[in-house]
Order: sequence, then C-alpha cells, then structure tokens
Amino acid sequence: MTNDSDERETGSAFMPKFDAQGLLSAVVLHADTRVPLMVAFMDDKAVAATRETGLAHFHSRSRGRLWKKGESSGHVLRVEKILVDCDQDALVLMARPEGPTCHTGATSCFYRKLEGGLLHSVKS
Amino acid sequence: MTNDSDERETGSAFMPKFDAQGLLSAVVLHADTRVPLMVAFMDDKAVAATRETGLAHFHSRSRGRLWKKGESSGHVLRVEKILVDCDQDALVLMARPEGPTCHTGATSCFYRKLEGGLLHSVKS
Repeated sequence: MTNDSDERETGSAFMPKFDAQGLLSAVVLHADTRVPLMVAFMDDKAVAATRETGLAHFHSRSRGRLWKKGESSGHVLRVEKILVDCDQDALVLMARPEGPTCHTGATSCFYRKLEGGLLHSVKS
Repeated sequence: MTNDSDERETGSAFMPKFDAQGLLSAVVLHADTRVPLMVAFMDDKAVAATRETGLAHFHSRSRGRLWKKGESSGHVLRVEKILVDCDQDALVLMARPEGPTCHTGATSCFYRKLEGGLLHSVKS
C-alpha cells in the first residue's frame, strides 16, 4: 500500500485512476430507483465534461472520441450525484434520464436476465 | 449493424462480448436495495465460475488471475440474478453480500460522493 493509494482510499481529494487505456468504468443508475441504466467508460475529458455540464459524457471506445449521451437522440442523462469507489477507478452516476437510455429504445440497456442458460426479458 | 450484433441485442443466446483484453465490465448491486456495492471486470473464466458456483468471481487485473470475491476475507457475494446489457459487454450481478463488500471494511466500495470538487462520506 503506497501513500498514493492510501490517499485515494481515505482522502477527500478526487483523484480518478485511469487505466492503461486512459479509462475508468462508469455505471449509470436511475437517481430515484437505482435501476441500472447503462455501463460505459470515461476518460479524463468525459469526467470533466460531465462535471461541467451535469450531463453524462463517456468515451466511446468504438468511435475513439468523447461521446455526450443523447447527442443524437436527445436522450440525455442528467447527473444528480457521482459516487466514487475505494480506489477511484469506477464511478456511479445517479442520473435522471430524459427518454429511454438504450439505443434500442429500451428504458435501460439491461433489459434481459440470464436464467437457465438463456436470456429472458425483464420488466423495466 | 451485423447479424452478430443483431443476435447479441435481440436474441436469447448468451454471447458475452469480451474486449481486446478479454474482459467485460461487471457491476454488483445489492439484490434487495440495488445499492451499488462494487465494480470489477470478468473474463470468460470468471463468468463461468460465477455461473457454476453462484458466487461472484472476477478477473483481477493487478494480479492477473481469477479472483473469487471473499476468497481471503470470507465476504463472498451470493449472486441471485445476472442482468445482461444490449451488446452483452456488461453484466449486473444482483447479489447478497456476506459481510462488507469493500476491502476497507465498508459495506460498499462506493462510500464517497463527489460534491463541490471534494469527496464526502455517504451513508451506506
């Protein structure tokens, strides 16, 4: 345990820990119900843009760029709270969605559960 | 949109999509309250071990190996449900924790929120 990781775990300074790809994990839960809406990655730009605008931004690995959630659909996520984990390499965004979160039109990207080896629809 | 991604999004087959490092994102929420407990990564072995045992297993990037949560502490996570996202590169484990989830002794790894540029404790 280095001083740096002590500080990350117990301190009050926000020191996001990006991995070798410059990313950390970001989970979006509905601010009221905690229903999981989506999971993505953020780089330093996405973290900064989210904090500045109050709207969830991510790093799109497939497109290799900053991605404002809802930039084309209008279905933005208004971030009400950001939770930070022990080693600061994962964030939970408690957010209020404007419209469906999933690009498929589903309320949440997690619209299926794994049961008996197959995927089944879940009610959102 | 390829047929493969169509099948991933709409089909009933479990086709987990691992990234270039062989990993996907795994989020653990408390089965009753949906309080976020931890975020980690799974490789194919971790997915298989979790399904076989009903206990959460992950891939430790720092140790480079399969990691059964609670293997040293005894604080295992009993998985009650696995949710799968649209493109099958993220899983949500709805789990019942035996003991604190965080290695710091906290109930959840998400024991701080970012507010006004600083981290503050949250009640768990």
